[in-house]
Amino acid sequence: MDPRIREHAEIVVDHSVDLQAGDDVVVVAPPEAEDLVVALHESIGDRGANPLVLSGNDRFQRAHLRNREDFETPAHQMALVEETDVYIAIRADTNVTETSDVDPETNAAYSKAKRPILDERLSKRWCLTQYPAPANAQLAEMSTEAYENFVWDAIVKDWDAVREHQSQMVDIMDRADEVRVRSGERTDVTMSVAGNPTLNDYGEKNLPGGEVFTAPVPDSVEGEVLFDKPLYHQGREVTDVSLEFEDGEVVDHSAEKNEAVLTEVLNTDEGASRLGELGIGMNRDIDRFSYNMLFDEKMGDTVHMAVGRAYEDTVGEDNEQNESAVHVDMIVDMSEDSSITVDGEVVQRDGTFRFEDGFEN
Amino acid sequence: MDPRIREHAEIVVDHSVDLQAGDDVVVVAPPEAEDLVVALHESIGDRGANPLVLSGNDRFQRAHLRNREDFETPAHQMALVEETDVYIAIRADTNVTETSDVDPETNAAYSKAKRPILDERLSKRWCLTQYPAPANAQLAEMSTEAYENFVWDAIVKDWDAVREHQSQMVDIMDRADEVRVRSGERTDVTMSVAGNPTLNDYGEKNLPGGEVFTAPVPDSVEGEVLFDKPLYHQGREVTDVSLEFEDGEVVDHSAEKNEAVLTEVLNTDEGASRLGELGIGMNRDIDRFSYNMLFDEKMGDTVHMAVGRAYEDTVGEDNEQNESAVHVDMIVDMSEDSSITVDGEVVQRDGTFRFEDGFEN
Repeated sequence: MDPRIREHAEIVVDHSVDLQAGDDVVVVAPPEAEDLVVALHESIGDRGANPLVLSGNDRFQRAHLRNREDFETPAHQMALVEETDVYIAIRADTNVTETSDVDPETNAAYSKAKRPILDERLSKRWCLTQYPAPANAQLAEMSTEAYENFVWDAIVKDWDAVREHQSQMVDIMDRADEVRVRSGERTDVTMSVAGNPTLNDYGEKNLPGGEVFTAPVPDSVEGEVLFDKPLYHQGREVTDVSLEFEDGEVVDHSAEKNEAVLTEVLNTDEGASRLGELGIGMNRDIDRFSYNMLFDEKMGDTVHMAVGRAYEDTVGEDNEQNESAVHVDMIVDMSEDSSITVDGEVVQRDGTFRFEDGFEN
Repeated sequence: MDPRIREHAEIVVDHSVDLQAGDDVVVVAPPEAEDLVVALHESIGDRGANPLVLSGNDRFQRAHLRNREDFETPAHQMALVEETDVYIAIRADTNVTETSDVDPETNAAYSKAKRPILDERLSKRWCLTQYPAPANAQLAEMSTEAYENFVWDAIVKDWDAVREHQSQMVDIMDRADEVRVRSGERTDVTMSVAGNPTLNDYGEKNLPGGEVFTAPVPDSVEGEVLFDKPLYHQGREVTDVSLEFEDGEVVDHSAEKNEAVLTEVLNTDEGASRLGELGIGMNRDIDRFSYNMLFDEKMGDTVHMAVGRAYEDTVGEDNEQNESAVHVDMIVDMSEDSSITVDGEVVQRDGTFRFEDGFEN
């Protein structure tokens, strides 16, 4: 076994979820991630915790959904999650387009039925990580070995140093009322983050980590955004998503490719057409786009926004939490002709932060 | 996909577990069984039931157990099973000796901790079946294709006809007080089955089915048995197991190979050194020994006995149910120089039942 797999498992168990003796653990893993699941079992067993593995195989999901329209929330899965202390989800595809011929409406109905389970899961200690499967390498247009290096370079690293660096941007955002994101001709959006905490993602709930993120005040978002990085949603590529916001709601939307998938997402429920997250990618070890949101949203020189559910921890006590069955991230390139302005002051220009060398005001 | 895989799935769902809309289903499956799990998801989805897949991978179990001594019953797994309506377990190995270097004492301690989960699971509608993986073909000393034919011939068949044929032996056993099993020089054992129902296994809880079975009255077993077919237990082959019973308890035991594994099983708890099952294999479509208890115990011309737990349904209201964390079956060849005698009357001689052509009294 590649020694980085065991290092990866140790980081998950000790750094990301802080596993304790007696913890009841669920690992959700597709078949490609087998070696990482083996390494996790070594670490989980050594710490005296109790593992249970759910198989996250897209072929199963496609077969289940192919002729079905009505769904209910499965009581047995809910009971499992309620009694679980730690949830470790691993992504690793055999074919990233496996569910591409499932009807988008069916997918949306299924997501809706499973929402209470997602809610419950997010209230636990959890971590989402990636195993470098060949299909994910193919999507990134990389050889399998180069992709393995890319993934483990991004994951097996000094997360304390990352935390320190990113805390400078957290300090700025935590004091902010209004944030404006501008890029090129077609992105100029303003939103309030007043009263909402900004979180420092240094490899706990997401591994790799490498962003700072908060929730916009739902009704405050005004303006237009062109998400110039493509989006992969349920096996379909959606390109050049454009959203126009008024009073926090999406009042107009378009996409170059697969606009129907976007429309379906926005129509899932009321909260799906409002923003639930504003994130700033700060991880320069992730130095290329790989068509994988877990990595792409952390890239340096990017900003991402998610329609749908806001994470509870990013919403202040007196503020509204955007609720939805979905949480779909989309990315804006900030490397050129762009700026982030906080309360009238530019804090990032063309990808360089004001606390970094080379920043030009 | 081989069309027999979908036929297999339909038999599981419609015949074995009688799946209903709204049922919460757990499928436990190792990676080799992927195609069958896909076919099951089609059938489960079509019937409006809710699948959840647990990964039953021996590499995970080995990694978890390798350094661990103390175990507890995982509350999350218990909560899951309690809320589950239907439990489908699939066997299919990648390497049948995967857990051969796990300490037998560790295995026994782990089984003990998980016993309440097994108890709960056995109170549900459940089915255990086999997918023809190459490692299982290898163990059976067959090509993969020949083994596929063997498995699906045994499974994809007319289970109503099987039920009819076997009911003749159920009628005999249900009226029986004392059963004597004699084979060769070293097997002559007598036990009471008075008051205990005999069940007709026609492919419901076990698929393939093909046996009739009951529970001996625990204290009534007297005599000696040589199990001349080898036993595979937790990746280890145990050969020529010999047990001597007095007042229902094993008072002497030996095995040609891996006797320590046998000793460990018998020492698990009090019930592990008493019989929990007497079964008569009646499935002549299973025409060869394949080192797989799910098939071997159903072979025509064999009898099997299990030390450990008795199935609740095979124990009469006023009789004692043998309790144990284990249930380990072992097989006696009845094809030559052998007989089954019920209340003094021979009902099978050299493999031929008294209700079949060619029976000689």
